[in-house]
Amino acid sequence: MLLTLYLIGITAEAMTGALAAGRLKMDLFGVVMIATVTAFGGGSVRDILLGHYPLTWVAHPEYLLLTTLAALITTWIAPFMSRLRYLFLVLDALGLMAFTVIGAKIAIGMGLGAPIAALAGLITGMFGGVIRDLLCNRVPLVFQKELYAVVSLGAAALYLVLLHFMVPDWLAVPITVLSGFTVRLLALRFEWHLPRFEYNVPGD
Amino acid sequence: MLLTLYLIGITAEAMTGALAAGRLKMDLFGVVMIATVTAFGGGSVRDILLGHYPLTWVAHPEYLLLTTLAALITTWIAPFMSRLRYLFLVLDALGLMAFTVIGAKIAIGMGLGAPIAALAGLITGMFGGVIRDLLCNRVPLVFQKELYAVVSLGAAALYLVLLHFMVPDWLAVPITVLSGFTVRLLALRFEWHLPRFEYNVPGD
Amino acid sequence: MLLTLYLIGITAEAMTGALAAGRLKMDLFGVVMIATVTAFGGGSVRDILLGHYPLTWVAHPEYLLLTTLAALITTWIAPFMSRLRYLFLVLDALGLMAFTVIGAKIAIGMGLGAPIAALAGLITGMFGGVIRDLLCNRVPLVFQKELYAVVSLGAAALYLVLLHFMVPDWLAVPITVLSGFTVRLLALRFEWHLPRFEYNVPGD
Repeated sequence: MLLTLYLIGITAEAMTGALAAGRLKMDLFGVVMIATVTAFGGGSVRDILLGHYPLTWVAHPEYLLLTTLAALITTWIAPFMSRLRYLFLVLDALGLMAFTVIGAKIAIGMGLGAPIAALAGLITGMFGGVIRDLLCNRVPLVFQKELYAVVSLGAAALYLVLLHFMVPDWLAVPITVLSGFTVRLLALRFEWHLPRFEYNVPGD
Repeated sequence: MLLTLYLIGITAEAMTGALAAGRLKMDLFGVVMIATVTAFGGGSVRDILLGHYPLTWVAHPEYLLLTTLAALITTWIAPFMSRLRYLFLVLDALGLMAFTVIGAKIAIGMGLGAPIAALAGLITGMFGGVIRDLLCNRVPLVFQKELYAVVSLGAAALYLVLLHFMVPDWLAVPITVLSGFTVRLLALRFEWHLPRFEYNVPGD
Repeated sequence: MLLTLYLIGITAEAMTGALAAGRLKMDLFGVVMIATVTAFGGGSVRDILLGHYPLTWVAHPEYLLLTTLAALITTWIAPFMSRLRYLFLVLDALGLMAFTVIGAKIAIGMGLGAPIAALAGLITGMFGGVIRDLLCNRVPLVFQKELYAVVSLGAAALYLVLLHFMVPDWLAVPITVLSGFTVRLLALRFEWHLPRFEYNVPGD
């Protein structure tokens, strides 16, 4: 199940990357590159920070075909994307949860403690979008918008708490995914967000 | 002593990150993330480039609490920060020196030669700010402003020269920190800077 | 021969970095840093993604002298660079091919398959420029302009096909370099480019 969600996740992330590239009128190569980096960026940053080799796409180059296809298909269906917006956000939320759980699992498998495992889940979930936004020369959305990264961090924490209380993995994973998914959709529906910090430099 | 300076350094760096996030009106999650990345970015880039695992914050997750607290406190005391500007720059200069010496030490400990050890000091000192500025979508200050990175590189070189001439480490560290600290404050006071290179593309 | 081309490549890349820094009126330290990061960024990203240590410049710090010199010389000869534009593009195309072949070779040497070897060639060729553009706060040129990265990917694929059909390395390398070099110059001459994808967000 987690693999299915992961494949949904990299597909949804690749599509967000392709759309961001399209806003900048990139060529097809740029579209595929941004899509690929968005899909695999979070997991790659996590693996590099933890020293966890080989990276997912190095071990499974076939996943690169999937994201390349997703990027190219996005260039065809983009005019209808706004009508599919809700479906797209649902898939993206599912993918976020898959990324989060997989990231936490990898850190646990390396013998790392709960704080780093929670962070590994968060990094997997959010850094694909951060790199996409960096390459597209804008401030990462995830630092400014509704609850996205925080849902990922919260879900990672929930997963670790469940494991701590001996909930078996086959139960802890769906509980985590469903809870995080629900909170994410509620956050979108009711536009929940964290307080902002506004700092105006004196004399600027 | 070096650990104390290091803790001062990550606190000061986290505060610069939080302020940069506040200028972009980020939410509290973004503030904490930018602060964390600024504080640990330099050391993380160094460790990734040298293949030196585990990274500092992976081995010591408790440091993340310190920078998170520093970021949150910054959101409260920001209105008074301009009055504390001098204190802040002093702490930042101390932290820069700690980062530089620690970076050089790690490279030496890995058996790397003096040029890479000096670079490791420089990278530790400057890359936190570089990543902060990248995430905040601006050209890194360190490439444009007064002597900051150059002081770090010079201090790293001084430290390596001292070690080369058999000055014991307990003496070489404070000499390096004090010298670099002094030069950094003088550079701020007298607005020392390097010559600029200006290139206007013909026909642009 | 490949080493000569590599040295030409890092020199040409360092010069593009120095010119980009000059457009932003950076100081000499910034110029040297951007030049260095541009020259070694592609190989460093490749090595970090593949877990291939030590990085080239860590093993050969003397190459850093070459790129530093190239950066400083660029600040002197910049006013005449527009007249040298053609020579410069020729050297850059040669360097791109060297980067591509070296990147693919390293992946093969690590026992990785053809898809990752081709990507390793591409990453080596293009990521120096990507990091340069990120640090200079602009959307990476390589995602928007004429055939550059695609030539690198195609050359890497050609090289792997030649090796697959038992063409000896001493023959496969010059065939690859010459083919890719020729296509790159033709792409520049006739302004070949890929189709673009343009996406306008509804209601934006």
